[in-house]
Amino acid sequence: MRIAALAGGVGASKLLFGLSRATPPGELTIVVNTGDDIEMHGLTICPDLDIVTYTLAGVVNASTGWGIDGDTFAARDSLGRYGRETWFNLGDRDLATHIHRTDMLHRGKTLSECAESIRRALGVEAKILPMSDEPVRTQIETENGLLPFQHYFVKHRAAPRVTKIHFHGAASAEPAPGVLEAIAAADGIVICPSNPLISIGPILAVIGIRDAIAARRADVVVISPIVGGVSLKGPSDKMMADLGLEVSALGVARMYRDIVGRIIIDRADAALQTSIEELGMAVSVTGTVMRTDEDKVRLATYTLAQFKKKASGAPA
Amino acid sequence: MRIAALAGGVGASKLLFGLSRATPPGELTIVVNTGDDIEMHGLTICPDLDIVTYTLAGVVNASTGWGIDGDTFAARDSLGRYGRETWFNLGDRDLATHIHRTDMLHRGKTLSECAESIRRALGVEAKILPMSDEPVRTQIETENGLLPFQHYFVKHRAAPRVTKIHFHGAASAEPAPGVLEAIAAADGIVICPSNPLISIGPILAVIGIRDAIAARRADVVVISPIVGGVSLKGPSDKMMADLGLEVSALGVARMYRDIVGRIIIDRADAALQTSIEELGMAVSVTGTVMRTDEDKVRLATYTLAQFKKKASGAPA
Repeated sequence: MRIAALAGGVGASKLLFGLSRATPPGELTIVVNTGDDIEMHGLTICPDLDIVTYTLAGVVNASTGWGIDGDTFAARDSLGRYGRETWFNLGDRDLATHIHRTDMLHRGKTLSECAESIRRALGVEAKILPMSDEPVRTQIETENGLLPFQHYFVKHRAAPRVTKIHFHGAASAEPAPGVLEAIAAADGIVICPSNPLISIGPILAVIGIRDAIAARRADVVVISPIVGGVSLKGPSDKMMADLGLEVSALGVARMYRDIVGRIIIDRADAALQTSIEELGMAVSVTGTVMRTDEDKVRLATYTLAQFKKKASGAPA
Repeated sequence: MRIAALAGGVGASKLLFGLSRATPPGELTIVVNTGDDIEMHGLTICPDLDIVTYTLAGVVNASTGWGIDGDTFAARDSLGRYGRETWFNLGDRDLATHIHRTDMLHRGKTLSECAESIRRALGVEAKILPMSDEPVRTQIETENGLLPFQHYFVKHRAAPRVTKIHFHGAASAEPAPGVLEAIAAADGIVICPSNPLISIGPILAVIGIRDAIAARRADVVVISPIVGGVSLKGPSDKMMADLGLEVSALGVARMYRDIVGRIIIDRADAALQTSIEELGMAVSVTGTVMRTDEDKVRLATYTLAQFKKKASGAPA
């Protein structure tokens, strides 16, 4: 069973860990958001690609969800001595990834080739694709002005009120090699419980990806990142509220209704089932909070099982 | 008393430490070899500039003479995981220097501006100038073929027999801003006890520097890096032997006779004084082995005192 997954970073990585355990080697292709990428100190940093790769490699810092377990910060502190910004936490081991990638890019390699080199070096079996080899940069329009994504997210801790979100470069960005093929060939497409606005949004903004997903609508399952009206990870809830969207699994379903056939919602949100079904989406209800590795594999297995239901499930 | 010093890395740094203590702030300008520079992982690494700066900043690893005291090597080990060469030891704190410099260079700054930024950040009062802002790369012709300098020196531990030394780029490299001015304005010029072939040689190969030094010959003092027929640091002795040069303070004096008025030799070499004087150079004999900080300041003070002797001292 070939699976394609759309993913951001921390919000997606628990489910991806489960999917990587629940699918045979080579059957999982992950399309990762690169709108969060940032150039810092001359290095190209791809937070979501790295979070996904480190997670699947088993080296991620489990307490933060990003960075490498046990990493040190000697270089970052020394960069500060040179008057450089240190609000973006670059660990010493993590830095090797950015140096490796940046050197490859300078030598004319693509971001896809970098991602492939890194996941192979770290022993990850799932295929990890950037959404595009061309730069897309998410920018957040806030009450304090336009902020590059990481400035909004890390430096300002997602505090300023969001008025609009831009995906700079997306309108002219082609999908990376293999992205549309993976979506077309998949037996099932999973949209991870990532932030719909700034993790999945940029992927869907790349030329052709939204249409490719929409064409597979009956085979697309999303796991709601909002449970009981709050986001389990990150500022999805706060950003949705800033933009006047309903902060609930129903609000999530509304954003995806054109391209997703089925949504998995948490038991806490079971009361929303009928309202969501009225949008023309199938609904599956289960426990979606992943605390242990068993939780992750269980939800992944449950997600994969939904694809077998599609013929009878979707009312659309 | 304004002093200009020509310097390589480890061999020079002990004396430079002494000179920095023995001269008033702002009176010492150090012109540093950049022929040893290397591009690695896309980063521009300037070993001699960094050794000199770290030494004067008091952060150098005293046991090796290079790198930063207490530095860690997490990033280097991770770079190895990506299949990258790890024979060149890049510490995590040290890496911050290379990242900072490389980013400045990519933004159009000169190597001089990088050196200035780094020494100021680390609180070094002496002025530290690269010999040139243009790339010069020392290459060693050996029995095993042509090797970039760091490959010969670090990767192959200076083992292959040297047949010739090239300073690639030197013939078209202009001195960095301030280099010729510092040489012209100095009350005394010190050639540090560095390797004459691959530390001082590249500096003298930059357009106009050899002539500028020669024009000040009576005010130029060199400290012999060869004591008792061996080099105190590095492969000077082995390289001189490979090239058929006499491995002694006399051999050193012969290399410098056209541009240096006085050589300081160790007491162990006192017997060579007459032979050196016959070359037309003044000779000063003292203890030149620096083990303690007191040794460094003492030899530096002794060196500065030689400039006052020039009128009566030089037989040339």
